[in-house]
Amino acid sequence: MTWEDLAKAKREAVFNKIPKEWVIEVPPVEEAPNPRVLLDKLLPDEENAITDSTAMELLDKMKTGELKAIDVATAFCHRAALAHQVINCCSEIFFERAFARAKELDEYYEKTGELYGPLHGIPVSLKDQVNLEGIDSALGFLSRVNKPKTKDDESVIATILYNAGAVFYVKTTTPMAMMSGETYSNIYGQTYNGWNRRLSPGGSSGGESSLIASKGSLIGLSTDLGGSIRIPAAFNGLFALRASWGRLPYCKVDNTMAFQPVAPSVIGPSARDRNDLVHLVKTIIDTEPWFVDPKTPPIPWRPYSVPEKLVFGFYKTNKVTTPHPPVMRAMELIKEKLVAAGHEVIEWDPPVSHKFIKERLREIFVAENYNEITKECAITGEPKIPQLVEAWGLKGELTVSEHWEQARIQYETQQKYFKYWMDTAKSTSTGRPVDAWLTPVWETVSSIAGNPRYDKVSSYTYAVNYLNLCSVVTPITFVDKTVDVPVTDFQGYDESDDALQQTYDPELVDGMPVAVQVICQRYEEEKALEIAGVVYKATH
Amino acid sequence: MTWEDLAKAKREAVFNKIPKEWVIEVPPVEEAPNPRVLLDKLLPDEENAITDSTAMELLDKMKTGELKAIDVATAFCHRAALAHQVINCCSEIFFERAFARAKELDEYYEKTGELYGPLHGIPVSLKDQVNLEGIDSALGFLSRVNKPKTKDDESVIATILYNAGAVFYVKTTTPMAMMSGETYSNIYGQTYNGWNRRLSPGGSSGGESSLIASKGSLIGLSTDLGGSIRIPAAFNGLFALRASWGRLPYCKVDNTMAFQPVAPSVIGPSARDRNDLVHLVKTIIDTEPWFVDPKTPPIPWRPYSVPEKLVFGFYKTNKVTTPHPPVMRAMELIKEKLVAAGHEVIEWDPPVSHKFIKERLREIFVAENYNEITKECAITGEPKIPQLVEAWGLKGELTVSEHWEQARIQYETQQKYFKYWMDTAKSTSTGRPVDAWLTPVWETVSSIAGNPRYDKVSSYTYAVNYLNLCSVVTPITFVDKTVDVPVTDFQGYDESDDALQQTYDPELVDGMPVAVQVICQRYEEEKALEIAGVVYKATH
Repeated sequence: MTWEDLAKAKREAVFNKIPKEWVIEVPPVEEAPNPRVLLDKLLPDEENAITDSTAMELLDKMKTGELKAIDVATAFCHRAALAHQVINCCSEIFFERAFARAKELDEYYEKTGELYGPLHGIPVSLKDQVNLEGIDSALGFLSRVNKPKTKDDESVIATILYNAGAVFYVKTTTPMAMMSGETYSNIYGQTYNGWNRRLSPGGSSGGESSLIASKGSLIGLSTDLGGSIRIPAAFNGLFALRASWGRLPYCKVDNTMAFQPVAPSVIGPSARDRNDLVHLVKTIIDTEPWFVDPKTPPIPWRPYSVPEKLVFGFYKTNKVTTPHPPVMRAMELIKEKLVAAGHEVIEWDPPVSHKFIKERLREIFVAENYNEITKECAITGEPKIPQLVEAWGLKGELTVSEHWEQARIQYETQQKYFKYWMDTAKSTSTGRPVDAWLTPVWETVSSIAGNPRYDKVSSYTYAVNYLNLCSVVTPITFVDKTVDVPVTDFQGYDESDDALQQTYDPELVDGMPVAVQVICQRYEEEKALEIAGVVYKATH
Repeated sequence: MTWEDLAKAKREAVFNKIPKEWVIEVPPVEEAPNPRVLLDKLLPDEENAITDSTAMELLDKMKTGELKAIDVATAFCHRAALAHQVINCCSEIFFERAFARAKELDEYYEKTGELYGPLHGIPVSLKDQVNLEGIDSALGFLSRVNKPKTKDDESVIATILYNAGAVFYVKTTTPMAMMSGETYSNIYGQTYNGWNRRLSPGGSSGGESSLIASKGSLIGLSTDLGGSIRIPAAFNGLFALRASWGRLPYCKVDNTMAFQPVAPSVIGPSARDRNDLVHLVKTIIDTEPWFVDPKTPPIPWRPYSVPEKLVFGFYKTNKVTTPHPPVMRAMELIKEKLVAAGHEVIEWDPPVSHKFIKERLREIFVAENYNEITKECAITGEPKIPQLVEAWGLKGELTVSEHWEQARIQYETQQKYFKYWMDTAKSTSTGRPVDAWLTPVWETVSSIAGNPRYDKVSSYTYAVNYLNLCSVVTPITFVDKTVDVPVTDFQGYDESDDALQQTYDPELVDGMPVAVQVICQRYEEEKALEIAGVVYKATH
């Protein structure tokens, strides 16, 4: 079988998991560019009411018996089925399991009058990397298709969520090897944005974020090695947590280059509602996952009370590249609103160039020369996806000494950066170091889906990965083409920056969400989540 | 200058830091085999009273004004000077700083009536790796001699202790590169045991442990990559903490292969008194070192209350090698006493062979083929020490993929081992998993100093390093040659085990201390320290 045939068969197998009554004829993009609007029309009102709710609202209704888990599961399975047909976001569909699980939970509720757990009946979508028994984790490789995982392979975090009452129903698309800011693979082709069928969902968690944005999911798990939770969350207008290394258990979540120990990938949730996000994270941490995952530090959930006055570190650009006008406006807006709300905003001017950080991090990512990716591709003969090849320069596999030297440079950079952060206490009015650092997520708010990559020049996500900080993506506003006009006489930092700025097309991205990162120090997830709430409230 | 000349000059420079009035003629070993006894005779009574105290006792006396910091500093400098002449344990001597610091502290006390900090006036000895401004950190390499560290190089943990009022006065010997269970270098030659001048102090922190055992120090900092805190602590009858990775800040502590990220070295204290050990660890953690060291997880000090009934995992041998008779007796003694005290002791039978763990860990240690060590030696032409060369097989430098594969195997082994540990809850009477696991530290209680190495077959320390557990070395008893007789008709696990058993010489090690490890799970340092107290009390 050629890899093309294998891909076609897999796509069809996934499609065939959609009940016939939910199969639609998808209107052309021109007629229905916005998946959210299209799906709202296609879904029955009572199901729209469910998919428009937050998880907390659904939990309340299931607690009083007003809603059943099976109603919730049905609504989200139906909407996810529609979403998949429109934006191609699911790598696996297994609604029958969701219905069975929901019925079990309903029976439990009927018997006991209690919810089964803190996530009783809440549908949780999972990036393809999260292992479930009997289901593939292809990671965008044809070589891994039709190789279902065993019970023993099941991801620790999936077991935790399941035991808390979550309902699993879909896994979501990734680019090959998750090594791309776009979501394209030879298996599934292109995934589209949840707000605009012309646009990219970002990557690598593009399937996850676009599904949640299209309201085919409330909340789901993504991963982030260099920005893969945050880019798609921003492109799709979601809240998302990129936690510090190991804070949430990654144990038995599949990955490529999975055991790279210097700047590892992390797992974290994306959601439309911030309280839902907090609830999910707290639920996981409250199970004390450090007794199961040897890489999770034993840090319990520590409630954070927001002080009256916060101090924010702030810049509009990182002096490497210049964000597009709507992102610049969002940054201005935050600053203005936070100051108006009585907070302090000080200039963020770290002693390490973000270009340096980006280059060092990328060298870590390619330290084994993509040998694993090359091997996986060779199994079926599929080509590397262009997004992968174009984005990264390979220079041969490093030796152990060279790799340890990378670790040294990283550690020394962290020391320098953290010292800068702590020393800000000398110049804040509160006497505390900066509470959170505000920065764009990405230079753009999205781009044409499948577009040639421009992320050679992107640089806003990497510092969090390289330094091991925590970041909450926070939606701020929407593009308004009448306000967010191109800069005339733009003078960038260099030619790449000029070229990037020229890709801004207000007509194309009009109405798209714009988000920022609220970044706190290592393992300050509780704090970052609360401060994200302050930032959101100030701007809404 | 030849490396031999350089070594001689460095040794003389260190020796010349000893005030003339403290220089002694050292009696031959036959006349004064026990350094503790010899030093007790040489030191004035009022100084013996100080060096016989615990840190907590000295703090109490300095608080009431009964003692001054300068008295304490003088007593310990004097005794350390004598100890160095007898057992060759100091790599650096800088008493003048200690006196100046002590005077400062006394002035502070006179002015305020308060102690300067929780370690006011407490002399703390430091393994050579800990950086202080103006002093070498040679790590047993002649290439690093006469290259004093700068202010900016100073170890984070040294600054923390200094700011708490500690008094620094000596640094202590290590073998070349710290890669040995013996303490020998081309700079300083052989260091001897604090209890017996014929015997090895263990390694790599042999200088530190033998100085403390000889009462030339109360407490000090050592490091542990494969057993280097624990082996010398056991050989010298001390309490010692081998903490989990990063729990205590290693930032700017010098090392070879310092940025190896898979099974890193840790820093931790050794002391004669368990309460002193706890006080030091708590003092460090209470400063929130995670805001300074990017590798320290933000885990505050969490007091642990010992429940009425503890459950211990227990074995006398790990099925790889058989400890010598005194160690076996110590294990029997613990079991008997703990059961008599109402605790439960269950068989420890982990699903992973300790031979496997040892082999995998050693492969990680030599992943860069000792290239750094080879380079350091080449600078001055000094030869690798035999202990280093004999102990480890080099097979060439690994690639990054091979190194990541090591990380994969380790992580999967950890998962398996931790599952075993957690599952013991099913068979304990408390319903909790085993609270602590008791095991020998080492097969022997020491051996002839400079002896050809037998640690190819040793295997009791590695599991803690490979799995990232925490361990408290706890002194239990002393060798009694009339009781601890050689096993007749010994049948070992293999030929190496037979050969190891034959090295047991009750006459040689009579009177030497015997210790065990009290091991708890990752980052359970507070618990391990408390349970070590239970084990100590039960056997004393």
